Amino acid sequence: MRIIQVDERDNVAIPTADLAPGTPMGGGLFARSYIPQGHKIAMADLREGSPVVRYGAVLGHLMQPVQAGGLISETMLRLPESPDLDGLEFGTDIVTDLPEPPVSVFEGYPVEGSPYGGTRNILGIMTTVQCVAGVLNSAVERMRKELLPLYPAVDDIVPLNHPYGCGVAIDAPDAKIPIRTLRNLLRNPNFGGELMVVGLGCEKLTVERLLEPGEISGENVIMLQDHRGYVTMTDALLEMAERKLKRLNERRRQPLPLSALCVGMQCGGSDAFSGITANPAAGYASDLLVSGGATVMFSEVTEVRDGVRQLAARCADAFVGRRLAEEMRWYDDYLRAGGVDRSANPTPGNKKGGLANIVEKAMGSIAKSGRSPVVEVLSPGERPSKRGLIYASTPAGDMVCGTCQLASGMTLQVFMTGRGTPYGLAAAPVIKVSSRSDLKDMWSDLIDVDAGVIVSGEASIREVGELLFREIVDTASGRKRPWAEKHRLHNDLCLFNPAPIT
Amino acid sequence: MRIIQVDERDNVAIPTADLAPGTPMGGGLFARSYIPQGHKIAMADLREGSPVVRYGAVLGHLMQPVQAGGLISETMLRLPESPDLDGLEFGTDIVTDLPEPPVSVFEGYPVEGSPYGGTRNILGIMTTVQCVAGVLNSAVERMRKELLPLYPAVDDIVPLNHPYGCGVAIDAPDAKIPIRTLRNLLRNPNFGGELMVVGLGCEKLTVERLLEPGEISGENVIMLQDHRGYVTMTDALLEMAERKLKRLNERRRQPLPLSALCVGMQCGGSDAFSGITANPAAGYASDLLVSGGATVMFSEVTEVRDGVRQLAARCADAFVGRRLAEEMRWYDDYLRAGGVDRSANPTPGNKKGGLANIVEKAMGSIAKSGRSPVVEVLSPGERPSKRGLIYASTPAGDMVCGTCQLASGMTLQVFMTGRGTPYGLAAAPVIKVSSRSDLKDMWSDLIDVDAGVIVSGEASIREVGELLFREIVDTASGRKRPWAEKHRLHNDLCLFNPAPIT
Repeated sequence: MRIIQVDERDNVAIPTADLAPGTPMGGGLFARSYIPQGHKIAMADLREGSPVVRYGAVLGHLMQPVQAGGLISETMLRLPESPDLDGLEFGTDIVTDLPEPPVSVFEGYPVEGSPYGGTRNILGIMTTVQCVAGVLNSAVERMRKELLPLYPAVDDIVPLNHPYGCGVAIDAPDAKIPIRTLRNLLRNPNFGGELMVVGLGCEKLTVERLLEPGEISGENVIMLQDHRGYVTMTDALLEMAERKLKRLNERRRQPLPLSALCVGMQCGGSDAFSGITANPAAGYASDLLVSGGATVMFSEVTEVRDGVRQLAARCADAFVGRRLAEEMRWYDDYLRAGGVDRSANPTPGNKKGGLANIVEKAMGSIAKSGRSPVVEVLSPGERPSKRGLIYASTPAGDMVCGTCQLASGMTLQVFMTGRGTPYGLAAAPVIKVSSRSDLKDMWSDLIDVDAGVIVSGEASIREVGELLFREIVDTASGRKRPWAEKHRLHNDLCLFNPAPIT
Repeated sequence: MRIIQVDERDNVAIPTADLAPGTPMGGGLFARSYIPQGHKIAMADLREGSPVVRYGAVLGHLMQPVQAGGLISETMLRLPESPDLDGLEFGTDIVTDLPEPPVSVFEGYPVEGSPYGGTRNILGIMTTVQCVAGVLNSAVERMRKELLPLYPAVDDIVPLNHPYGCGVAIDAPDAKIPIRTLRNLLRNPNFGGELMVVGLGCEKLTVERLLEPGEISGENVIMLQDHRGYVTMTDALLEMAERKLKRLNERRRQPLPLSALCVGMQCGGSDAFSGITANPAAGYASDLLVSGGATVMFSEVTEVRDGVRQLAARCADAFVGRRLAEEMRWYDDYLRAGGVDRSANPTPGNKKGGLANIVEKAMGSIAKSGRSPVVEVLSPGERPSKRGLIYASTPAGDMVCGTCQLASGMTLQVFMTGRGTPYGLAAAPVIKVSSRSDLKDMWSDLIDVDAGVIVSGEASIREVGELLFREIVDTASGRKRPWAEKHRLHNDLCLFNPAPIT
């Protein structure tokens, strides 16, 4: 058992295992009560109103006094105001001494006209509207059985079903978000540049809203209302799929520079260890990738909102910084309109895992962005125009973030978890990193990399970060398949639609 | 070819087939231009500012003059204001001479503690959160292969996946809508009263928010974080499913009074014929059902909003009427907050089908409620406390309406369509009714009942209504399976969540 203090300014620490009352913690301190693994212990006598400091940041102020060795639970903390978005300072913390990556290439699939290559070779079939999902799913079932075995170089056939497309206010100001997400999603590099869109014929999300005029033809688009019934439309779907599969089957992996790789970072089911093990290790891997020329995205507005000053300082220039503030402000307003604020983010599981509030969660969450400068800020579902570390603004929900990152071009995701989730995507491999070794022991066939060894002292952040970097390159190159991919664990696409439905 | 005028007050009519310019239409009238099937023809010279009247209702006012025989397109009409919700008159049109149904029983599955019986015998597996969907889906694939054949009296195993559960503002004022929907969904009578809930363990939508305290046990609930990895959790899911399947397999259909039947009415992909063929026929079937003691729900706020006066007059009492106005007002406000109004409802397909605007769409849409008094008004996803005709308030999107009606207890849906959609639900059979015979000819293996024969004069509204009533009873009794059920066309559950996501 150890007691971990992250920053020398901290007046709290967390135990690596549950503490019985009276357990000595060194320096004359002892546990005043039962203290669960990961929960905060006061390292000094703290008065009512005292700031509680972890990661060198004020998590909140005590609403009651706590003696040294006492447990500080989430109900004792008053949440501070969100950091002001006016007057942020940009570009004051631009790091240039990033670590060198051990390798500079991966084996990927080049995609014509795309800045990124694919890590998988998938036929993605986009839908304009949920109405067609039943027919498409039953056709895909047949395609997987009858066609896929004939084209062994193709990894999978993935229907891109979603609830959008009709019964929505398609001209509402915020409708641009789901529409852009779908437009970009069908161009994810893992789909190899092949376009296949299935529509109905009377929906609001017309094909014209998804494709360029030159792309709209019988080569790429099937409208079910044009076909004479179920059997005929299914036959048409299989026929188009086979044409696409033939082309995809010709593709071969080839060595590509890391600049052709676009990796997404996300965490979910976080705990108090996420911010000191899994996320900083992912941050180190991210720095290696960025330094090698790759693009790395991190996201989740409410989980970086309280770290906006640190991120502003890392923004490459004032334009990027202003875009960051703009995205944060948009989300503040969006939450306010629904009668909530960023404090609605933490889950019961986060709290059980020792995270007192959204400030503590955010301080751990931003660690996954490493130290690289932020070169671009994207609105949800936008595609980047630069390479390097990118803040791709998205909601924090795992599936919504994953869907937005896929739209932004991410071809492989790294997912850090403390409580444990079996999350997986059909369109890109997901590498899962545990914040605690307990979780890896418990879920040995779901967790790919254990960052809990950082707590036990078996490995450093840097060592786990390097290991994770290699895992990313091996997975991107198809040499390794993460557990979620092996088990075919595919979560639904979950669109972010802040506009009304009709 | 015929020209159809619905109400004697109407100054427009619609042709049953495309009209070439110059086609004589009787009474000295001829088509002034090409007029597509179902589009409006001026039956007299109309000045700028004239009201355009169909169904005896003002659809809007002309923004330009139109000569008799001229086409009135949607761009020529100025939309009137929504009918005022203050000062509605309630209970002034209570009909008591409903037609008698030809049969008074169906063969269903009684469900203990439920006012309604099931029409199918399905194991429904509820999820607390999307995180578990990948594991559950892969387990259900095995269940269907390994277990379902052993329990032949069970129709299917259906995972109830949804995007809610985490990454949401669970205490936001409007979060009650998705939570209530999920709570009630898992109690749909087609699931036979068996409860099976799969959660993760750290999500916001805790099991306590879905189940009563006495229902929460290892008998009904599996939390994935409690299990040692993928194989173990999958085994646990199969084991629980088998216990439930054993009990479901003991059930047998038995004669139940129509009062144990809960039918949902919905239309989608509507056209100008929907309101004179499919919807009134469904309305007649609805009256037969209600008169026989059954419960019939109709929904879709924006598609009844312009008919609120007619519905208010049919509300059984002032309490029901005030609830109707309340639901309409809530939706008005919800749309306004997103920068739109009810005019955002019609689709390109509706317009292509001759529906000029939401008023015309609504006038056709409410016809599916027949003439019965409205005995209760539900908020989205609520369960009824009465039998008879119920206005179950929902958005108009097909999948969202379907999901809400399932939560409200609907065990069979009747779906009217003009443009054609292959819509289907996994949890309840859906009977599809075409508004035009063209559609039935085109989609002979998707459309179950053709109401287009009303236009050709081959059958009356009453005759098609009776036919549909018999189709409903036969389908509810398991003697018939609609096309969508035969092809296993299952649309996703689409929740209505007007609250923010975090």
